[in-house]
Amino acid sequence: MLPRATIKRMMKQHTNLNISAEAVEEICNLLEEIIKITTEVAEKNAKKEGRKTIKARDIKRCDDERLKKKILELSERTEKMPILIKEMLNVITSELE
Amino acid sequence: MLPRATIKRMMKQHTNLNISAEAVEEICNLLEEIIKITTEVAEKNAKKEGRKTIKARDIKRCDDERLKKKILELSERTEKMPILIKEMLNVITSELE
Repeated sequence: MLPRATIKRMMKQHTNLNISAEAVEEICNLLEEIIKITTEVAEKNAKKEGRKTIKARDIKRCDDERLKKKILELSERTEKMPILIKEMLNVITSELE
Repeated sequence: MLPRATIKRMMKQHTNLNISAEAVEEICNLLEEIIKITTEVAEKNAKKEGRKTIKARDIKRCDDERLKKKILELSERTEKMPILIKEMLNVITSELE
């Protein structure tokens, strides 16, 4: 578990505002999620190259991978895609007039 | 500074592979960057609402904010957008045949 006091101290390096305990908790949740996903993706990278050790380069690409997953999730969650596509077609076909 | 041993232990909960010291260092860099950006964006949120305390809800939106920025950056960097749009139009117009 991440040490709450350390995390809060690190946050304080970037702001003069007070920070609620719940805010520290929330950022720790985010960091823990990132550690989990990053490690899982790094493991896949390492295994793909037949290694038994996770190296720095396995970590580097993980954040992009995480963002990619999140974008795909978002596009599945939103119902706006067909509307956007229609809107785009409207713009293109307005050239006909 | 994030405690390297704790971070490594947390990573070990998600993999059976060995983890190099450089990999732990790399994930700590990522986490520190996220703490910095998240705190800065949370501060802006709090100030916008005239608060002197960062709350959990300020944190919640930050990751989305970071994701959004990165997607916009990506879309500006790629030259594939016009190609993708043409491809999409091809798919739609193939219904004509």
